Order: sequence, then C-alpha cells, then structure tokens
Amino acid sequence: MRPADTIHWDDTTGSLLLIDQTRLPLSYRVIRCKSVERLITAIQRLEIRGAPALGIAGAYGVVLATMTVKEKEFHRYFRQVEALARTVADARPTAVNLSWAVTRVLTELRSADSIKEVRRVAVREAGKIADEDAEACHAIGDYGAALLPDTGTVLTHCNAGALACREWGTALGVIRSAVRDGKQISVIACETRPLLQGARLTAWELRRDDIPVTVIPDSAAAFLMRQGEIDCVIVGADRITADAVFNKIGTYMHAVCANAHGIPFYVAAPHSTFDHEHTQDQITIEERDRDEVAYYGRYATIPEGVPVRNPAFDATPLSLVSALITETGVIRPAAGTVAGKRRVI
Amino acid sequence: MRPADTIHWDDTTGSLLLIDQTRLPLSYRVIRCKSVERLITAIQRLEIRGAPALGIAGAYGVVLATMTVKEKEFHRYFRQVEALARTVADARPTAVNLSWAVTRVLTELRSADSIKEVRRVAVREAGKIADEDAEACHAIGDYGAALLPDTGTVLTHCNAGALACREWGTALGVIRSAVRDGKQISVIACETRPLLQGARLTAWELRRDDIPVTVIPDSAAAFLMRQGEIDCVIVGADRITADAVFNKIGTYMHAVCANAHGIPFYVAAPHSTFDHEHTQDQITIEERDRDEVAYYGRYATIPEGVPVRNPAFDATPLSLVSALITETGVIRPAAGTVAGKRRVI
Repeated sequence: MRPADTIHWDDTTGSLLLIDQTRLPLSYRVIRCKSVERLITAIQRLEIRGAPALGIAGAYGVVLATMTVKEKEFHRYFRQVEALARTVADARPTAVNLSWAVTRVLTELRSADSIKEVRRVAVREAGKIADEDAEACHAIGDYGAALLPDTGTVLTHCNAGALACREWGTALGVIRSAVRDGKQISVIACETRPLLQGARLTAWELRRDDIPVTVIPDSAAAFLMRQGEIDCVIVGADRITADAVFNKIGTYMHAVCANAHGIPFYVAAPHSTFDHEHTQDQITIEERDRDEVAYYGRYATIPEGVPVRNPAFDATPLSLVSALITETGVIRPAAGTVAGKRRVI
Repeated sequence: MRPADTIHWDDTTGSLLLIDQTRLPLSYRVIRCKSVERLITAIQRLEIRGAPALGIAGAYGVVLATMTVKEKEFHRYFRQVEALARTVADARPTAVNLSWAVTRVLTELRSADSIKEVRRVAVREAGKIADEDAEACHAIGDYGAALLPDTGTVLTHCNAGALACREWGTALGVIRSAVRDGKQISVIACETRPLLQGARLTAWELRRDDIPVTVIPDSAAAFLMRQGEIDCVIVGADRITADAVFNKIGTYMHAVCANAHGIPFYVAAPHSTFDHEHTQDQITIEERDRDEVAYYGRYATIPEGVPVRNPAFDATPLSLVSALITETGVIRPAAGTVAGKRRVI
C-alpha cells in the first residue's frame, strides 16, 4: 500500500485495504476487507469516511460482491451481486457518492456475459473511479488554489483531505495545490465534534505534509473571524443538491458566520457529489449514536438518562456559498453577495 | 452543606466548601479550602467556576487571607491580607466578579481597627455577597421568565446555572423561574468544548430538577436554529463592558447565528458582572492550556506537536443582544433589531 493512499485495492489477495481512521492519530493501522459485510462495518464505524473515499469504497463493495457470491448460474449470480452491492449503497444515507459509485459499477456490469467477465469489469470500473477521484482532486486543487490569497489563513472543518479521498483531498487538496504553487497558507482546523476528524485527521495529514496547522474548538471559529484572523473558509461536501450543500455538522454555522463577516466561504467537491435529482428537503440527515457525544473512550461526559441530538450533517443553502470548486471549474452561487467585503460586527 | 449550594462557608471549621465541578457528572465531591493557595488552585483548575460563584469565591478568598495571615502587628497584618487577597483577584483575568468581590470586601475592611474585627467584617461582607447573589439570581429569574414563551425550547451554552452561582443560577435561573411559573420549557444544552460544562454541569443540574434537557455538540446549534427548533437563546456573562458581553467561547457564534435567524438572544447577569470602566478592546481574553483541547482524560485527540488555540471566552457586541436581564430589570441594547422577526435562511 502506498502510504498516501487512504483506500487501495490489493489484487493479489482480492481485498480492499483501508487506513483505519478511528485510530488516528494514536496509531496507524491498515484494515483488510475481504467481504461486503466487513466493508459495511468499516463504513458504519467510520473506519473509512469522507464522501469521495466512500465512493471508492462503494465501487470496491461491488467488486467484493462479485468475488464473494458463490452462485454458479449467471442470472442468479448477477441478481445476488446486485442485491449484495445495494446493501453497501445503503450503509450510510447522506453522502451521495456511495450510491453513485455502486450504481455506476453495477451499470457497467450489464455489458458482461459471464461471471469471470463480471468480476473483471467490476475491478476495472472501480479502479477507474479511484483513478478519476485522484485526478478530480488534483484538478479541484488547481482551480481552488487560484482563489486562495498568496499569504493567508484558511479555516476548514472536519476532514476533506487525502484521508477522505484516494489522495490529495478536496478542501485540503486546494490548500496542498496552493502550497505547491508557493503560497504561504496556514490552516485553522476545527476539531469537529463529536468524532474529532479535524483534530485527529486533518491535523495528522497536514502535519505529515509540513503545512502549518492549528487546531481550535469548533466554537472558536467565529471568534477568530471577528478578530480578522481568517481569510477564507474551505470545506468539502457529502452531497450537493440543487439548493444546498450537505456536509459535516457545523458547516452551516461556519457559513452563517463567514457570511456575517464578509469572509469567502468555499466548498470543494467533485461532480460525483452533486445530486441533481433532489432538493434539500428530500435528503435524510443521518442521526448517529448518543454515545459518540456522551463518551470519550471510557469517560462519560453527559449524565446518564440525558438525551442527545447527534445529527451527522447539516445543510448550507447555496446562497451562503461564495464558490463551489469542482474538477471542471468554479461555480459561484452567491457571486457578489458574500466574498471580499470584509464586515466588522 | 445544603446540597444546592455550589459554594458555602463553614464557620465552625473556618473553611470554604465547594462542589468539585471537574468531577461532575461522574462523581459528586466537596472540596474544603482552608488556605488562599488551595482556593486559587480550585479557581484555576475550574473546580469552582462561573462568574457569580467566582465573586463569592473571591470574597471568601479575602476571608481566608484574614484567617491565615499570622502577623500580629495590625498595619503589617492588614497589608499582608491585602497582598494575599489580591492574588485571588488575579487568579483568572476575564471574569470581573472575582476582582469586584475582592475589592468590595477589602474596602469594607478599612473600617475595622483590630485583627479580630477585620476577620469578623470579612466574614460578614462575604456572607452578604453570597446572600445578595442568591437574591439577584431569583430577581433575574423573575424578570427573565417573563421573556420566555409559555411553551418553547431555549438554547443555552456552558453553565450559567446553580453551579455557577450560590444557587438558582442566572441563565438557568430564568429557566427555573419560568418552569416554576408553569411554563413548558425544554432546554438544549450545548456541550461547550473544550471542558464540556454544558454536557457535564448544565445537564446534571437540570436533570436533578426534572427540567427536560437535551445535549448537542456546539456546532449543531445553528442547524437546530435553521430547523426552527429554537425559540430563544439565553446565556450568562463573565464581564459586560460598555460595548460587549464576555462569556464562554462559542457565545459569539450563537449570537451571530441567532441574529441571522431572527431568534432572540438574551444575556442574564447580575450588576456585579458589569464593568463600566472598560471597553472590549481593553479586556484580556484568557488563553488556557493546549491539553484541555488536545486530551480527554488519557486520550490524545490531536497529533503531537500540532499547536492549539484555546481562548476561554469571546466578546459579543451588544448590538447582537436582544436583552440583558439583570436583578433590577431588563436592558434592551438591540431592541427592534434582533428579536421576534424569525428569518429563514
């Protein structure tokens, strides 16, 4: 496994290798998935997470389905593969890339007329999705880098980095491209409660790449904006509908506060994250376990019996987004209404 | 010790009893302070915290100084008491109540002309501050209760409750008074990173009083506002200057988001929290230890070597405050600009 690859197909053993993101930064371990069931566990436990990486995981979920279904009769085999692959698509409801990739690989399989051919086409198409993801991240990085100041501080939330993609990253890909181009960028990483993907993952991968990064509690972002310490905000996305960006809980709060201060708010995501079929009201926001908020390791942080709300995502209306940075260029939903006019509150 | 009292002077042993707030909700322990040094440790470790409770702690800090200074010559004794008491006032820089109470008791001591009399006056004046705090909280509660809806959901941040005062609380005092008056109030308690005073303390004391409370990550507040689930926000304050409210980090973010949604944003605090001598630019915001953000118990949450910003407070301009609720009545700095006009983003 190349060290920078978050998710990697090992053809010699027919297994999918994943960096276990629940253990970073304390330990670096690689998980080997040989079954659809193990992959679903990895997705639901967030051992693998991040919209583009989930797309790749979904694609290889189909590959694992093609390899593990034992049926010999072709049509029954195909139906069983489809059914098993659909369970991967349903493992998490909000990120669109997962079902997008499963559907794309399944559609491609229709051209195959033998079990052997199905397996070959699945591996080829999943590999294509992984390669395209890496290319898309580099293209997003290049388009986005042009939007960043030559010297400045960028605030990001959660992890939309190499660990959320095959490599390079979307939001962090933009930062990597800007740094590669010689820009002096410092990053403020919001820790991202409850699961601390910003503190654990964004800090880990930026430090690995020697990009200056400072971690803050999520609630300190608006304070730094008011102090004039943030030049722009850049985040990834789990789903972009016709009217809103779904991303990690907290994204909306940053967008409202950035807007109030006249600070540009950017979203970096590949086209596979766009959902042109739905509007925000039609999307289910995953509510996750109480324990994610109420415990840290063995420590209870909330009195027994007190309920918790733990929405994993929120929706930010496009009217608060200065630019959507995609692999084919930049879309400006709120051009002129947000960016550039620093306001003092 | 009466169970509801956060801070209580035990005259028979000449010691100050404090509920250890670092251990809640896991365990309920009472700390006995017999020296100024132990009290300063308690203040700096946040075993006792909350602006009004810090005022009471400061007052009894002077009492402990009068009891522990061993000098027999009156004038030297008095100067040593003053010097020792000033170390309590400086234990934390942002909350004004601490130095306010120390100064108030020291000023009162000037009338005393013997060591015995100094000690007697100190105990009497500190007791008066504690009693006045309880009265102020009940008055704040009564004025504030009238602002709350008959049925509704109130969002609060950190702990401005019985645990932050002698009893009843400021922000939570308003909620307690409203519930006592028969209003149906549910509370959303923001967990309040990094030290989780909302999750640990607000949830604990509201559950004890059977007031419905749900804990959320701080970053989910704006999401709930957008969903129309929050009727108003109410918080306490550590210092109110001529132009801003200093309170727990995250307060400003809630104020910006409440304002953006047209949700009333209330601050409940006694007059001892007002600092008429300064404007916001003159106030030091305490930056606390990296480890508060980077560890939970033994668990490292941030990679080694990655720096952290950990401001304990932020400043919310009065233009975002719908009402300041004090023990003498309600002040409306932003009347007409914020409250009541629900906006959809």
